[in-house]
Parts: sequence; structure tokens; C-alpha cells
Amino acid sequence: MTIYKNSNKIDSIKSVDFCKHVGYSWNEVNEIMIVLNEQADKPLYFQIYKQLKDKILSGELVENSKLPSTRVLAKTLNVGRNTVEYAYLQLCSEGYIESKVGSGFVINKIDNISYSAAEKQNLPNDPRNLNDGTVFDYKYNFQYGKLNPNDFPLKLWRKYTNYSLSSLSVKNIVAYNDRQGEIELRMEIMKYLKMSRGVHCQPEQIVICAGTQPCLTLLCQLFRQYSTDIAFEDPAYDGARDVFINNGYNVVPIMLEEDGIDLAQLEKTSAKIVYITPSHQFPTGTVLPIRKRMNLLDWALRKDAIIIEDDYDSELRYNSKPIPSLQNLDIKDRVVYIGTFSKILAPALRLSYMVLPQPWLDRYQKKFGKYNNPVPWLQQKTLENFMIFGHWERHLRKVCLIQKKKHDILIRTIGELMGDQVIIHGENAGLHILLEFSDGKERELIDKAKRCGVIVYPVSRYWMCSDKYSNNMVLLGFSSLNEHDIVSGLKLLKAAWFGD
Amino acid sequence: MTIYKNSNKIDSIKSVDFCKHVGYSWNEVNEIMIVLNEQADKPLYFQIYKQLKDKILSGELVENSKLPSTRVLAKTLNVGRNTVEYAYLQLCSEGYIESKVGSGFVINKIDNISYSAAEKQNLPNDPRNLNDGTVFDYKYNFQYGKLNPNDFPLKLWRKYTNYSLSSLSVKNIVAYNDRQGEIELRMEIMKYLKMSRGVHCQPEQIVICAGTQPCLTLLCQLFRQYSTDIAFEDPAYDGARDVFINNGYNVVPIMLEEDGIDLAQLEKTSAKIVYITPSHQFPTGTVLPIRKRMNLLDWALRKDAIIIEDDYDSELRYNSKPIPSLQNLDIKDRVVYIGTFSKILAPALRLSYMVLPQPWLDRYQKKFGKYNNPVPWLQQKTLENFMIFGHWERHLRKVCLIQKKKHDILIRTIGELMGDQVIIHGENAGLHILLEFSDGKERELIDKAKRCGVIVYPVSRYWMCSDKYSNNMVLLGFSSLNEHDIVSGLKLLKAAWFGD
Repeated sequence: MTIYKNSNKIDSIKSVDFCKHVGYSWNEVNEIMIVLNEQADKPLYFQIYKQLKDKILSGELVENSKLPSTRVLAKTLNVGRNTVEYAYLQLCSEGYIESKVGSGFVINKIDNISYSAAEKQNLPNDPRNLNDGTVFDYKYNFQYGKLNPNDFPLKLWRKYTNYSLSSLSVKNIVAYNDRQGEIELRMEIMKYLKMSRGVHCQPEQIVICAGTQPCLTLLCQLFRQYSTDIAFEDPAYDGARDVFINNGYNVVPIMLEEDGIDLAQLEKTSAKIVYITPSHQFPTGTVLPIRKRMNLLDWALRKDAIIIEDDYDSELRYNSKPIPSLQNLDIKDRVVYIGTFSKILAPALRLSYMVLPQPWLDRYQKKFGKYNNPVPWLQQKTLENFMIFGHWERHLRKVCLIQKKKHDILIRTIGELMGDQVIIHGENAGLHILLEFSDGKERELIDKAKRCGVIVYPVSRYWMCSDKYSNNMVLLGFSSLNEHDIVSGLKLLKAAWFGD
Repeated sequence: MTIYKNSNKIDSIKSVDFCKHVGYSWNEVNEIMIVLNEQADKPLYFQIYKQLKDKILSGELVENSKLPSTRVLAKTLNVGRNTVEYAYLQLCSEGYIESKVGSGFVINKIDNISYSAAEKQNLPNDPRNLNDGTVFDYKYNFQYGKLNPNDFPLKLWRKYTNYSLSSLSVKNIVAYNDRQGEIELRMEIMKYLKMSRGVHCQPEQIVICAGTQPCLTLLCQLFRQYSTDIAFEDPAYDGARDVFINNGYNVVPIMLEEDGIDLAQLEKTSAKIVYITPSHQFPTGTVLPIRKRMNLLDWALRKDAIIIEDDYDSELRYNSKPIPSLQNLDIKDRVVYIGTFSKILAPALRLSYMVLPQPWLDRYQKKFGKYNNPVPWLQQKTLENFMIFGHWERHLRKVCLIQKKKHDILIRTIGELMGDQVIIHGENAGLHILLEFSDGKERELIDKAKRCGVIVYPVSRYWMCSDKYSNNMVLLGFSSLNEHDIVSGLKLLKAAWFGD
């Protein structure tokens, strides 16, 4: 049976045959219109994608309908086959259609669509869920860790990715490469660390890793026989804490004083390793002063201990100069230095590195001499070229300026709107602050904000000893928002917390 | 002082100004010729790269000379700026030039060039080194793990990479994404595993990893409280063994019988985990028969034990059908299944996955709920689209045919040249074989081969109990060679081992 859904043909509108595929037999052909406008803002593939998506959502294209092949649709619409493929890819990745062996692209069942959506909604800590499970639509999300898409150097990244994907380079793609990471990339990182963070090292001390947690996982294996206890700031990054716990370490919480880690308490433990974020304590934002830095190094020397310095966002200092790293002060090889490209470039590149002390290199080689490097060669090479051509430095300067502007507006607006009713922790650096309230519980503050369409985040998760936490703070990240949204979001927060 | 090195100008030759940069002051300008031929086979950037490299090696361009900026050189040569950038990038990555802040591109000092080179030469197990340290030039390298650059689907990979790098996708690049890997990629892998390997699973059981070792590292953490002993085939993949040892496990070697793992010996251990390569034992190539498979599953059920099935190259079976996975036979959730894209697509993509048994999912979530996925989003998305559009299946079929042809030639030529003097182990599958000699020691066989310009590999490294190894085998991988080189290499090997 053949039904023509739209038989009125207009010259400027291109029409396509769609086949409905039910139970492995062909029994209906629908004709459906796709209107392309070459003069429009949106690229052609986007127009195809959008119109098909709308037809699926409206029910015009029903489940199990078969889409025409990319070849046929491209010919009918008189566009390149790539254009149609891109449209289909986007629909696939959003779950609207699916590629089935032998039958091409088929409209998904509704419960398949909701499967993906449901899966994503049920993630723990979905910020849209209120404590009681109610899901709210939010306007402003003060999420930490996410960056603003507009700040990513997409064109340059595409350019250097394509260069790395040239035929000259395929030999590297089909092989296992340098186990510590590409030597040229390590040399670029060495130069950058020396200049920007005062880190002194040779390329053979650098290991390229796929994020901070894989770095720490290697260190857990490296130091296994060295110490079973690890001292850990409390509060601190829970993602690092879990790595140590999962690797069988006994994590010893060390309280923070006004100016960072409590060294007297550290002294009393039997830990021979400490994990610390001295340049911008996470999440409190404290900067460890020089006196404490020297005392910490002295502790390490006396106890034959190791300091793991996680310098995750130290490039981002506003209204003051960056502070040199702990590694810079260390002349006795006590410090393992860890850095990441997630806060300045992008998290999904999965690019981080660690700098090992010289005396540990032999043991590292012995333990990991057969470990393949986990970071794709293409990713390493792209970053290497990005750095060689000076784009990393330029990008860093640009991002610092952008984030400083947003930071300054955030701090100023909080001052104007909330005045003495909140205390700001951790300003002048990084991509987040903590807000402390004289009156208010963390959970209530978050729920109140959500009801006004704003997501702010809990701080409690960063505490090991939850009884030490005053339970009156929330975390605000500002890196994914623009200046305008920061102000609008804060206005809603003011109303949520203090009334209009 | 200005010196013109080449003042004779020819129309078809384009000349460029080079500045020599000594001690931060400009004092010489050399004019150096670059001849471009638009009709040549080689692309323009390659011609620029090659000529500059030759001039550096010949000494015409001396250390510390400054190259013209990419803008200037592009203008002078009347080519695109990208063309010059690509040439410079290649020179950078090979260590001939270096980008210096404030002075552009500078010819490297000779000891910088030799630094990189030396670093690479000093890698342990550099196959060019004879036992006594002598370095030989080799013609044929029977390396395992490396693939042939011609087999990589470069054009398609570039296409889907570029699609993933579109502006619509940047939002995913600047965020941390799904902790177990992109759900759409997991669905594609699920479909593939079901069809090709009989693996039954849901997407939530799949975790995308950056290689087999990172997979195993997670499993070490997951099973930490479950068993301190792990049973391990002997011989087996030493890279896996090191992961277990580094994670504090007691690795218990289990001998192999003619048809795989010795189950009676396994029964006597207290291990509650076994790591095994049932479909193509590494390195011996044995296939675990169905009787042993059922007995192994029975052992796991009786002992409440876990089987880690590393199915690293099972797609590659020649002259017989692929064998279904152990996971396929397992109806009691005893098997963790591990697979990789390294053997069929490319190792440097760093893409592997594991399938967890349902009962372990809760514990997995609890332990790793805060771990970020280590595989770049771009890499995942590119593979996903490659699979959605059916290229993975097509590529798999193509690679199987290519490798089968090479395998068949390898086996046939060995038979013709060496006859009864060697025994072949592990044929009809995978990307390598073992050659066993009635007369000959491993080290001598390797050194003799090297002197004739052929690299073959030791097997001893895969044994834990080295006294059990007869010390008369070598390993030959054939995936990176073409058919012609396999035959030529074998002829040299015949001469090396048995005389002409």
C-alpha cells in the first residue's frame, strides 16, 4: 500500500520518499518535505537534522519508519552526501534514529528515546533533582568543572588535529608509542612549567596521564610499599580521596587552619605521604603561605615523606601574581607535582601530567616499564603543536582575562546584593567560590535556589569528618556562565535566599 | 653585517631571507633557496620540510639560525600559511627546530637533536640492540602489536573526527562526560559484541577504558577486598601481570597443558580470581576447548570466583569460525569480559572496554561513581560514528582478510623454507605465532636473526616460572609487514638459522 502524505509539490521545496518498515516487510511509502535554504544562517546539515527531528517529535515520522539512505537523500536534496550523513549522525547521537544492520536508519521507538534520556536523568546528583525527587527546570547552573564552549579554541584544535591525522603520522597511530607520553609534548610542558610555575624538571621526569585520577592511581601503585597511610586535607577533592581508598590506602584527614593544612596534626600521624592543593586549596581556596610551605618541606625531609602537590588551577590568579609551586621550593626531591589541562583548555581532552622526583625514576621504570601510555597519540600531538605554535600561552592569557572579568563581576555583585549576609571564601583565584551563611543549612539553601531556577552545589561531599563541617555553605562555579548570566543568576539567588 | 650567501637568482626558484640569531642580537641575514615544484608527487609542505631538513643536516643552516616567520615564508613562496606551518611542525616534532618565545623558530643545537634521538635509542628492549649493545640496521621487523599504516581507515577517521569537532559538539568537549563512556558508543559495542562474540549484556554493564591495563587497574580496585590471590596462566601477557603485582595482588602462576590452563592446579590454589585468554591464549595461541570452558565456569561457581576473560584478538580467526566467548556460556555472572580496538583499528587510539557482571554494578558505582572517564570524548564520538555508519564491520571484514592472507603466506613459507626444523605454535588466529626449535637457544636465535637484518622477539618475558620454559622459542608478529616483506624476512631468517 502506497500513501502519499504530501502530494502538493512546490518548486522550492524538495521532497523525499520515506519508507515505513514494519516487521521486516516494506508496506508504506510516505513522502515528506524537507525545505532547504542555502541563504540561511544555519548550515544545510543542521536544517536537515532539525526538520527530521521536528517531524519525529510531532509524530509525522513514526517509530520504525525507515529513513532514505544517505545516498538517496543527498541526491534528492541535491546536497553532498556528507551533509546528510552529518544530519543523521546528530539524530543518532541524540537517540532519535538508529542504524540497523541490513535496513539502514530507522526511527527509534519512543521508549528507546526515553531510555537514553532516563539513563541520563537517573545519574546520581543530577542537579535538576530536588531532595525529594522533584525535577525543576533551571535557568542558571553554577557548575564547577565545566567550561564555556565559546572559550574553547575550536578552529585551532581542528587545524592541529587534522595536521596530526596526516598520512605522514599514521605510522604513529597504528603503534604503541612512548610509554611516558610523546617526548616533544613533554619538552613543551617542561618549558611551560618552568616559566609559569617555577617547576624545575627534565622531560624524563614527566608522565602524560589521562586526568588527575589516573595520575594518582599510578602514584598509589608506585608508593604501595612506601606508606599505607596517606595524609589528606579535610575538606578536599573527594575524587582524589576515593582513588586512595580504592587503592587500599588508609586516608588520614588533616584539618585546615585559617591559612591551610594543620601541620601540628600532620606531625602526629604516621603518614609518609600527603596529598595537598597548596596554591588554591580545594574547595576552600586558601593559599598556603611561604612559612607553612617551608615547614611542610621540612616535615617531608625529616620523615622521609612524599608530598603530592595537585596544582589543578594555579594559572588562574586574579588581582595578584601566580604563586610559585611547592615543587619550586623543593631542593630535596620530596615533591610529586601534578597539573592538568582541564581547567584552561577543556576537561574532555583528558590531558594531565605529573612530574616525578629524580630519585623515583628508576623505580617508576621498573614498575611501569610495560604500561602503555593511556593518552591517544592524536590528542598528545594536537596539544604539542598547539603549544609549539604559541597558542597555549595566548589561550592561557585570554582565559585568565575572561575568567578574571567573570570573577570580579561575581564578587562585586554578591557584595552589592547580599552584603554582610554571606562570607565569600576562595576569591581571587580559580573557577569557584564558597559562600558561607550565618543562618541557613546547605541542603535548604540548595533547594531554595533550585525552586528559583538556579543550581548551586553542596560542599559537604568534600568533608571526611562531616561533624567538623558547619553545614552552612554552598559552592558556586562560574566558568561555564557568561557575565550576564552570572548577574541574573545571583539576582535570583538573592531572592531565593533573602527575599526580594 | 649583511652577507648574501646565494645572490644568483633563478626565476623558478624562490628565495627566502634567513636571519641568524646569536646572543639575542641580529647580525647576519642569509638568503637560502627553497625550490617548490607544484607538479611533484610530494605535497608542498613536504617539499619545504625536506629542503629545510637537508639544509640543517648539511650545516647550511647552522644552530641558532632563526627561520623566517610562517607569514613571511608563506608570502615569499606564494603558498598558504598552513603549508609552511605544517612543514615547521614536522621539523619541530623531529627536533630540528624549536619554537622560542619572542624569537620564533630557531634551528636546534646539535645536542638537542641528539638528545631526542638518544632518549629513544636508550629505551629498554630497543630491538636494534644486540645483546652486547651493538646496534644493527634491520630490514624486517616481526614486531607484535604494531599494525600496518596502510590498513588504517585514515580518510574515514578524519571525516568522523571533523564531524565530532563541530561547533554543535563543543559543549561536550568543555565538560566532563559520562563516567562509564558515551552511552551511544556503549550501545554500538553492545550490538557488536552480541553479534560477533555472543556476549550478552546491557549498555550499563559496559565501561569504556583507555586500554587493557587501565581496565585491569579498575578491576584490581573493584576486587581488592574479594581476593588477594589471582591465578594467572604461565606463560601469559606480562603487561597484565605487572598490573596485578603493582596493585598488591599475589599472582599465582598456573601451568598450561596442551589444551590450555591446568584446571587441577587451579583447583588447588586459594585464588578467587583468574585472568585468562581463552579464545587465543597469549602467547602460545591455544584455544580453550568447550570441556575446559565448562569446567572453568563450574570452578568459578563452586568457589564463588571471578573469571577475567581477555578477548584481545578473537575477531581474527582464519580457516575456522570465531569461537564464542566464555562470557557467552556464563549464565551465573562469573565472567568479566575485556575487549580492545587496538588489534583491529589501531593501538594509539587507546580504546578498550569491559563488560561487568550485573551483580557487580552497584559496587562499581559506589567505588567509581566519582571517577571521570579517561577516554577523550572526541575519540569516543569518532569511533561511535564510525560504528553507526557500518564502517567498523566493513573494516573488521577487510582486516580479517588482509591478516589471513599474510598469516597463510607466513605459515606456508615457513613450511617451505624450514620444514621439520621448527614447530609452529598458535597458527590460524591472531597476529603472531611462536616458532619452536629442536636445537637453539632463544637469545642466540634472536641475535643470529639480527645480524641478518631481521628482528624477532623473545618469549621468555612471558614466563613467571622461567625454569618451566624450554628456552627454544621466538615470537614473530606479522601485522605490520606486507606479504612481500614476510617472505623476504623469512628467507633471511632461514639463512640466519639454518644456513643457505
